[in-house]
Formats: sequence, structure tokens, C-alpha cells
Amino acid sequence: MTDATTGAILDATRSSVLDFGIRRTTLTDVARRAGVSRMTVYRRYPDVDAILRDLMTREFGAAMADIAANVGGRDGRSRVVHRIVASVEVLRASALMSKILEAEPELLLPYVLDRMGETQRVAVTMVSADVADGQADGSIRAGDPRVLAQALLLVTQSFVLSGGIADDVPEAALREELAHAVDAMLAP
Amino acid sequence: MTDATTGAILDATRSSVLDFGIRRTTLTDVARRAGVSRMTVYRRYPDVDAILRDLMTREFGAAMADIAANVGGRDGRSRVVHRIVASVEVLRASALMSKILEAEPELLLPYVLDRMGETQRVAVTMVSADVADGQADGSIRAGDPRVLAQALLLVTQSFVLSGGIADDVPEAALREELAHAVDAMLAP
Repeated sequence: MTDATTGAILDATRSSVLDFGIRRTTLTDVARRAGVSRMTVYRRYPDVDAILRDLMTREFGAAMADIAANVGGRDGRSRVVHRIVASVEVLRASALMSKILEAEPELLLPYVLDRMGETQRVAVTMVSADVADGQADGSIRAGDPRVLAQALLLVTQSFVLSGGIADDVPEAALREELAHAVDAMLAP
Repeated sequence: MTDATTGAILDATRSSVLDFGIRRTTLTDVARRAGVSRMTVYRRYPDVDAILRDLMTREFGAAMADIAANVGGRDGRSRVVHRIVASVEVLRASALMSKILEAEPELLLPYVLDRMGETQRVAVTMVSADVADGQADGSIRAGDPRVLAQALLLVTQSFVLSGGIADDVPEAALREELAHAVDAMLAP
């Protein structure tokens, strides 16, 4: 689905957003940076928000795949713990995510309140597979892997979005609680 | 802080929101229903969103207090589990919360992304006390009660906000996972 032109548009949007922020990124600027006409951009996307949604899917999907390629651990349960803690770290450190949370958090609302986005679906599918592996190797308790993975998604995304709301609890302490929580949720 | 006039304004806002929805609730309508002048409302609140914020604090605070008065359970840990599951049920069933999630979810964003609201602070304080009790009676593992309570808040609010995003996982199944998760997070 991502042809070279779309890839160039996403790259251009990413660099414009990181340079100037979301509110000052325009389709004209994106077209110029991508070396295509504005009409070419408009044929693919109605507005900058639509490009941003695709960019999030690409960027966060790549981060998930990257973590997946490096997930270690002696059994299924420790792989799930590792994957989730690494995902929270990567997303909280992401420059793109920071810009979105700062300038255009409404963009994330539908995926918090209404329906799963592409990145969330990918994450649940990956974690379901890990959970099934962990059930096979005896490290994870019985239960529908998709239900367990969905519950883990809800826990995880709250730590991504709300990890910084408490001024009296350091994020490092919360991160440790997350690792403990995931491990304890899955233990047989 | 909530004098009779402010109470009447909050009552009027609540009934207008439930009758007509948030977007069609005006300060004029609120003043009429409360039996006060528009100027009286304006002296207390700049706009409907500001009233809604106070209304949420009152309504959700009362719900938390109500749950607190009815929390049973044989030890600190089961009281925390009960309190959290009951809170999610009450908030997901709340007509006011439903209207906000439907019409004006941006109102909740600051409390998800940036800073704790009054209801969240009250919840963390209540749960911290339960956690300390559970540590004293041996049902909850060691650890800073405020850190544990903060982690539980993040888990809980995700189930309140995002309990309905997965179309293939029923909320009742997620609710069971939440109860298990809270219990497992706290077990010694």
C-alpha cells in the first residue's frame, strides 16, 4: 500500500512535523519537501491529519516490529513483559509521539475511546501469539489469548499516555510497577 | 466551596446535559434552570466546560465516596479489588460520563495526558490507604503505597476509557481480567 510517493510524503511530513511542529505543517510544505505537486498529495490525503494517521501507523508499526525482532527472554511470559516494557519506553521516547501529545492529542482520542487503530491491532496480534506460546511452555496461565492480550493493551496504553500525569511518582517507579503487573497478570 | 447557588448551577447543568446533550447546553439555559441570573453564573464560571469540570468532580467524587462506604472484603487486597472494579462499573454506566465521552471527550484529555484531576487525586488517596491497610494485614506486598495506587489508577482509567474499543472482546471478559490483574499486582 505504501508506494514510493506515499513513502516520500510520509517522510516529508515527519521531517516537517519534527522541524516546525504539527500546527505549522502544511500540505504545501509537505509537497515541497517530498518533491511532488500539491495535487499528488491531495489525491492521497485530504489533510495533514490524515497523513499523520498513516505516519503513526508506519512509525509505531516499525517500532513494534523492531522490538519484536529483539525480544529475548527464557519463556513466553518474560517475552511479553519485555515486549510491553520496551514498547512503553520506545513510545514515551518517540519524538513524533511527543509532538502529537503536545500539539494534537485529539488525533489519538478515537483510538482511546472508540475503536482500535492499526498499531493497536498489530500489537494485540503479536502479544496474543506470545501469550499462546507462553501457555504452551507453561509460563502463562490459561485463558483466551486475545482477551489477555486486549487487557494487556489497555494496561500498556495507559502507561504510554498517562505515565507523566503524577507529579509525585517518578516514571521509573511506574515502569517497574508495569513490568511487575504484566508478569503477575500472566503468571499461572 | 460548593455553596447552595453553585450547587443549583451544577444541578441545572447536569439536567440540561442529560436532556439535551453537552453541545446544546448553554449558560442561559443553565441560569434559567437554576433560577439565577446569567450574571450570577458568569461570576462563578466563564463557560459551560468550566461548569462541567466542577460537575465531574462532584459527581465522580460522590460515586467514589459511595463505593467507599460499601466496600466489603475480608482484607485490604480484596477491598482494593472491589473498589476498583466497582469504580469502573459505575463510571462506565454513568450517564454523565457517557455524554462527555460522546460529545466532549477533549474535556478529559488533560487528565489523561498532563496532570491529575481532583477525582483522580481522591481515588489515589483512597486506594493508597487501602494498600497500606493491606500491607499491615499481610494481604498486599511491600512497596510505596502511593506508587502502587498510582499504577492502579493508570490501569483502572484505561478500563474506564477504553473498555469498549475492542469489538471482538466482550467487556465482561475484560472486567474479569481487570479484577484478576489488580489482585495479582498486589499479591505478596
